[in-house]
Amino acid sequence: MSKYWNDKVRELEPYVPGEQPKDKKYIKLNTNENPYPPSKKVIEAMKNAVNDDLKLYPDPTCSDFIDELASYYNLDKDQIFIGNGSDEVLAFSFMAFFSKDRKILFPDISYSFYIVYAQLLNLDYKMIKLDENFDVPLEEFKRPNGGVIIPNPNAPTGKYIYIEELKKLVEANKDSVVIIDEAYVDFGGESMIKFIKDYDNLLVIQTLSKSRSLAGLRVGFALGNKDLIEGLNRIKNSINSYTIDRLALIGSVEAIRDEEHFQETTKKIISTRKKTIKDLEGLGFTVLESKSNFVFASHKEISGKILYEKLKDNGVLVRHFNKERINNFLRITIGTDEEMAVLIKKLKLILR
Amino acid sequence: MSKYWNDKVRELEPYVPGEQPKDKKYIKLNTNENPYPPSKKVIEAMKNAVNDDLKLYPDPTCSDFIDELASYYNLDKDQIFIGNGSDEVLAFSFMAFFSKDRKILFPDISYSFYIVYAQLLNLDYKMIKLDENFDVPLEEFKRPNGGVIIPNPNAPTGKYIYIEELKKLVEANKDSVVIIDEAYVDFGGESMIKFIKDYDNLLVIQTLSKSRSLAGLRVGFALGNKDLIEGLNRIKNSINSYTIDRLALIGSVEAIRDEEHFQETTKKIISTRKKTIKDLEGLGFTVLESKSNFVFASHKEISGKILYEKLKDNGVLVRHFNKERINNFLRITIGTDEEMAVLIKKLKLILR
Repeated sequence: MSKYWNDKVRELEPYVPGEQPKDKKYIKLNTNENPYPPSKKVIEAMKNAVNDDLKLYPDPTCSDFIDELASYYNLDKDQIFIGNGSDEVLAFSFMAFFSKDRKILFPDISYSFYIVYAQLLNLDYKMIKLDENFDVPLEEFKRPNGGVIIPNPNAPTGKYIYIEELKKLVEANKDSVVIIDEAYVDFGGESMIKFIKDYDNLLVIQTLSKSRSLAGLRVGFALGNKDLIEGLNRIKNSINSYTIDRLALIGSVEAIRDEEHFQETTKKIISTRKKTIKDLEGLGFTVLESKSNFVFASHKEISGKILYEKLKDNGVLVRHFNKERINNFLRITIGTDEEMAVLIKKLKLILR
Repeated sequence: MSKYWNDKVRELEPYVPGEQPKDKKYIKLNTNENPYPPSKKVIEAMKNAVNDDLKLYPDPTCSDFIDELASYYNLDKDQIFIGNGSDEVLAFSFMAFFSKDRKILFPDISYSFYIVYAQLLNLDYKMIKLDENFDVPLEEFKRPNGGVIIPNPNAPTGKYIYIEELKKLVEANKDSVVIIDEAYVDFGGESMIKFIKDYDNLLVIQTLSKSRSLAGLRVGFALGNKDLIEGLNRIKNSINSYTIDRLALIGSVEAIRDEEHFQETTKKIISTRKKTIKDLEGLGFTVLESKSNFVFASHKEISGKILYEKLKDNGVLVRHFNKERINNFLRITIGTDEEMAVLIKKLKLILR
């Protein structure tokens, strides 16, 4: 605490990211990274871009990447905003569309950064309680509000909402912006992007960190009607005009272009997820249905905290949240088949 | 304008960065980029780092780069904060240390992002008028305030304040944070970093974009007492935990290590600046004394706006600010000797 901090900084409870051990000795199933490398085309293009041009500022409008996304998703260029990871895009969205006098709504068990943004910006919010199956009770989001954020699939549960249901939610909230956080949608879910042309109040946020294997690059994006995108650009250009570096811009274009690599790696993860769920259930775990690159599982006999610690002792990092209702669960990222075989082997040892 | 924008977004007047033409046909003297390439060691290390590890998140604590800076500047690790360019570091500083109820002070002719941050955060501010020689009247900053920002050298004037004078300013403002924005200090100025251990309220902000030839990488940093740094980390971790990508972190370390390249390129720029000032004066320009990698010049006969346009027609981009008191000036980045020779040749043609 310092006398130079303002009141806001004193009261903040910042987000705590998952452990990022530097020594690599762990099987890392704790931060939902993709176990497969990025496309070879990304690597090649970026290697070529490491050159003397780094002395020059990047394109602040990110136009090459926007052109690529516009073509890929069949959107207009002014319907696309690029940010430094989906976290920055989310933060800017909170800054642009939510107001102190109107309560925003998001699920109580969800991405824990939402509450941090709300606190940073002095926003009033209501967390809607997930039902007994850990499903998002969408009817509860149809009350008067100043904005809605739904992650689909949800994190850390992995549970998915069918887009026809979300469409009704967007329709029921014409006076506020509905943000669908699709960080994990590419692992078996369906995106809301197809409805962007129909709804002025829908903002879809995605990232290259998960399904494109580029967590190390820091690129996320928002898709929505042009007025929403202009609002995001106004915030960005009031904080930092150049948030994406030259190399990230070049790699991002290639990541979207290599559809084959994308399809292949996401399919592998979906297939490994299926096998992992079966194996975990065989060990006495309850595993929530997942459409993401992680599963959320609890064991009937051993607590989540102890399992987390014992797995760490055994060289496997998973994520445990010390939070009511979910403190008995582990969030386990889907790695390669080999990594998941080690996880299961270690769990068998621990449970023996 | 959209009904979904909040009041803040409606009233914002975002920063407008200098033109970044994509076709490269211009001699680009408009955004204070370094004309020399980054260190070969930076390029080599980054090329090697373009690999499959991009699937993993970067180190959110930026510890390798912090270690390097701590050793270079003889500071403790907890006295260093890393951000996505010095713009982001400045924005986070405004968010952490300034309050609505206490007026912040900065020069009226200065980096135009300061006023944008103040507006974004609803901060009350007073712009202190530069004197008739475009010097910062430091005595005016010794009144009660909620924070002070002084760029040294100033932009867009290039004028420098001796650090003994700034030291008195820091001493006179023990109740508020004094930010010295040293984006351009390496081109002949002296840094305030040596005083960090003496003053709890001093925050020095620097960047790799100018003197380290890495504008394309987006890395800036703040140096100050550990409580100030913790305040910045609290803001960062309430917005985006991973603002610096894996490659930028690796390149930054090498940029600080290659002292020889740094000394060589900054010396060349200082030498070219001296020659450019003489040449411009020979053409009838008034040029302010500069300790930065740009000069600020006005001509007695032709307006700044017309000179800017004619230079652009002739393939040379410089920066013109349509603002009272300085609208007759051009801000001209110091390029290579060859680029400046072209500038002078084109100016001779235009002035003929």
